Amino acid sequence: MELFSERGYEQTTVAGIAERAGLSERTFFRHYADKREVLFGGGTLFRDSFVCRLEQALDTMPPLQAATLAAQSAGAALEQHRGREFAAARQRIIAANSGLRERELMKIAGVTGEMAEVLRAHGVEEPDASMTAELAMAGFRVGFDRWLAPGERRTLPGLIHEALARIPVVGA
Amino acid sequence: MELFSERGYEQTTVAGIAERAGLSERTFFRHYADKREVLFGGGTLFRDSFVCRLEQALDTMPPLQAATLAAQSAGAALEQHRGREFAAARQRIIAANSGLRERELMKIAGVTGEMAEVLRAHGVEEPDASMTAELAMAGFRVGFDRWLAPGERRTLPGLIHEALARIPVVGA
Repeated sequence: MELFSERGYEQTTVAGIAERAGLSERTFFRHYADKREVLFGGGTLFRDSFVCRLEQALDTMPPLQAATLAAQSAGAALEQHRGREFAAARQRIIAANSGLRERELMKIAGVTGEMAEVLRAHGVEEPDASMTAELAMAGFRVGFDRWLAPGERRTLPGLIHEALARIPVVGA
Repeated sequence: MELFSERGYEQTTVAGIAERAGLSERTFFRHYADKREVLFGGGTLFRDSFVCRLEQALDTMPPLQAATLAAQSAGAALEQHRGREFAAARQRIIAANSGLRERELMKIAGVTGEMAEVLRAHGVEEPDASMTAELAMAGFRVGFDRWLAPGERRTLPGLIHEALARIPVVGA
């Protein structure tokens, strides 16, 4: 991450990352498929926190409440495993590179689509399933942006909850 | 559009598009900067319908209502200027090409960001400004997807309104 910030993402080589981390290139590739993986390796955790948590929560609570819990759970996972400093550095690197920005948006759209699918599979009809998935992701995104603001001291799950608490979906 | 559908986006050349349209390549380039413009040339209209309409509407109504109206106005512009058939073909072409999918997501994220800015400039505080912008775009997207479903006969603005009518934002 330091290297990406110092040199820019495009200018950073796998050899450079491995050297900084005190690893051989071979060891690096055992951990990450490529340098993109350093930034997007948390994607599965992000997806699972959202989608699996949603599936569980739908057994015991209404859709928007379950989706809110899922968004908070993804926030908690991110805060715990990566932390604010990593997330902020990652965000700056991604913002500076259109290919990475686009990949990030695709990741988010993919998880949103999966959530809508889970909701439909649990009997939520359209447009409610899609809107609930979109809302949960919007709450995550808005909470996340505020979490990274200088001086912000609230937790990420708290900020996500605050954003989503402002939306009671009729009939959800 | 026909050519993109028949041959795939990557395989379609500007020469081929110009030929099908009965234009010289030179004339084509007078109308479009490149072949991407055939798909994304409506972006300014989309942006303006959202952002300018929101600015006007905020003078006379509360934020979510104004944002809903803006989303409906973008839907009306799309329905009127492009039509369902064009939009459906365009969507299939974009779905089949990751570069185009990513560009589409970037466009949407950009307009959402601009709407949040307009809301803040009109005194809406965070997280409400960002959430309202995200909700309006979510309503547009969900309405748009339903509009393209086979057999759907309702209007795009009507479907957008239906999606957004299910979200009364507290305090908006």
